[in-house]
Amino acid sequence: MLREIHEQPAALDRTLRAEQRRMSRLGSRLRARSIPLIVLVARGTSDNAALFGRYLLEITTGIPVSLAAPSVHTLYRRRLALGGALVVGISQSGEGTDINAVLESSKRAGATTLALTNNGRSRMAQIADETFVSRAGRERSVAATKTYTCQLMLLYMLAEALGGGDFDPLRRIPDYAAAALDLEPRIAGVVERYRFMERCVVVGRALNYASASELAIKLMETSYVLAERFSSADFLHGPVALVERHFPVFLFAPPGKVFRDLRALAARLRRLQADSLVFSSERSILELATCPIELPRRVPDLYSPIPYIIPGQIFAARLARSKGFSPDRPRGLSKLTRTL
Amino acid sequence: MLREIHEQPAALDRTLRAEQRRMSRLGSRLRARSIPLIVLVARGTSDNAALFGRYLLEITTGIPVSLAAPSVHTLYRRRLALGGALVVGISQSGEGTDINAVLESSKRAGATTLALTNNGRSRMAQIADETFVSRAGRERSVAATKTYTCQLMLLYMLAEALGGGDFDPLRRIPDYAAAALDLEPRIAGVVERYRFMERCVVVGRALNYASASELAIKLMETSYVLAERFSSADFLHGPVALVERHFPVFLFAPPGKVFRDLRALAARLRRLQADSLVFSSERSILELATCPIELPRRVPDLYSPIPYIIPGQIFAARLARSKGFSPDRPRGLSKLTRTL
Repeated sequence: MLREIHEQPAALDRTLRAEQRRMSRLGSRLRARSIPLIVLVARGTSDNAALFGRYLLEITTGIPVSLAAPSVHTLYRRRLALGGALVVGISQSGEGTDINAVLESSKRAGATTLALTNNGRSRMAQIADETFVSRAGRERSVAATKTYTCQLMLLYMLAEALGGGDFDPLRRIPDYAAAALDLEPRIAGVVERYRFMERCVVVGRALNYASASELAIKLMETSYVLAERFSSADFLHGPVALVERHFPVFLFAPPGKVFRDLRALAARLRRLQADSLVFSSERSILELATCPIELPRRVPDLYSPIPYIIPGQIFAARLARSKGFSPDRPRGLSKLTRTL
Repeated sequence: MLREIHEQPAALDRTLRAEQRRMSRLGSRLRARSIPLIVLVARGTSDNAALFGRYLLEITTGIPVSLAAPSVHTLYRRRLALGGALVVGISQSGEGTDINAVLESSKRAGATTLALTNNGRSRMAQIADETFVSRAGRERSVAATKTYTCQLMLLYMLAEALGGGDFDPLRRIPDYAAAALDLEPRIAGVVERYRFMERCVVVGRALNYASASELAIKLMETSYVLAERFSSADFLHGPVALVERHFPVFLFAPPGKVFRDLRALAARLRRLQADSLVFSSERSILELATCPIELPRRVPDLYSPIPYIIPGQIFAARLARSKGFSPDRPRGLSKLTRTL
């Protein structure tokens, strides 16, 4: 898992180079007609990429986005009125039975379907009208890392393509990712104090709500910590009541539109004497944290989810080792889970 | 909280009677034009009602549904292409600043807006094109119960109205709710064994994924148990790794389309020696549970979320008391939370 985490800058760069021309052509075709709705379909870690895409695509294109509920298609066998919609399946393996069933039923309903996958020969690639392949290389760890960030890269490319922009701003993302990897010694130094943590809360907002959800799933599957993910707004509507002295809360707080809310939450957590670990480049929130993790680069809000999840991935992998588990082979899991 | 839980059959009946005529007229008007998209906007407990509505409306009407991300509107100030869409705000108080901002921005974008609220004189009622008022009466407990199930009732009515059905099947829901209240002694009997529970997982699928999410939020805000909600499919994609001997898992398992999946999960939990509490009317899953809670009536899948959440509400209220907390006044919360 740690080795694959370190492969990310190269994998992101390869993915951008390999698919930018075709993505750009797809954008021209899709912009020629007006798309009323984008539907994203995924499970597990890929569903966290979809959650990111949900915010990214609405913010950058103004097209409404829905995260598909596979059971509506697979168990209730309801065909939705998706004529004209763009339906995007996201799957590392491309073999998720339920995801593929949603793509098939959407296609029959008149939607244009895309596959974002790490396997260009998968069943998903056969079903979709167009397939874009992440260049993560084979992922051996059950806990997905490089395929997740490469899915984010493909979604950035799709957003640029739909908006008619060029891909120039995306070229800096591999560098942001490389800089974030430099946090490894710092994280190795703090992990020991979480050795006996059994439960925690992970908070982010908007684009980084996906990072919160992804760190939570990594902590659950590699370190068996019950980690609950919240957007900072939802957290204040009830679950904040949980927080007592020393309760561990992890926060993703890049500068930008959501920063003020997260800083206010960090201040409230400090008053509650919670144990907060904060990922940020900003002094004004780091100084409120019990455990500040200072990001080495000040990255624009929109491009923060990749460099911000990387220290989270390192944290999960190192915590698993500290607790005596193998992050590569979680108990009771296999690389491909089939659900309907 | 317990008193308000018991007021639900009457409140549901009042809500149905009071709003059915206007809802039916709205249905005729909306069916005259084709609605491409329904967007649901809510926070906290109302967001769990929205999650229920997301499944219900897609299953019954075939119109795609999106759960709004308020920050896209409030922080990123992006106007979405929502012309022709039906945007439905759900809020007990009708005073949620962010929810109201989303309704306003959707209205400017050309959407038809509805308010589902317990306060017909709220700001939300002033903004929306049409308002439907739940007849829950004033809710004094900070932990919402009767306003939640009345929101579900309004969503059932909206689904029937959009589908051109009558409201007859809904008339039985207050009886289902009354029968579920008979579970109180059984639940009072089992709560003690959860006295020291600090974390758990709550699982449901499709319509009852909302019940899982709602029980989880009730456990967090009244009993300070870290309760993580999952759909059974998502749970198998990673988080199931958490489950070790005696790990507490709560399952909502009504008969119907999702039953087979939940029964398979219950069998797996038994092999893992987890501590499972199962809400169901079905012997074949109750016999797999560590702690079976047998629903007195066999309720159709579609109408199960109200009678199934009621024993969950009772459980949360009784557990709070057993732990020595007041379920009516959780620490650090007030009835109205304002977020942007």
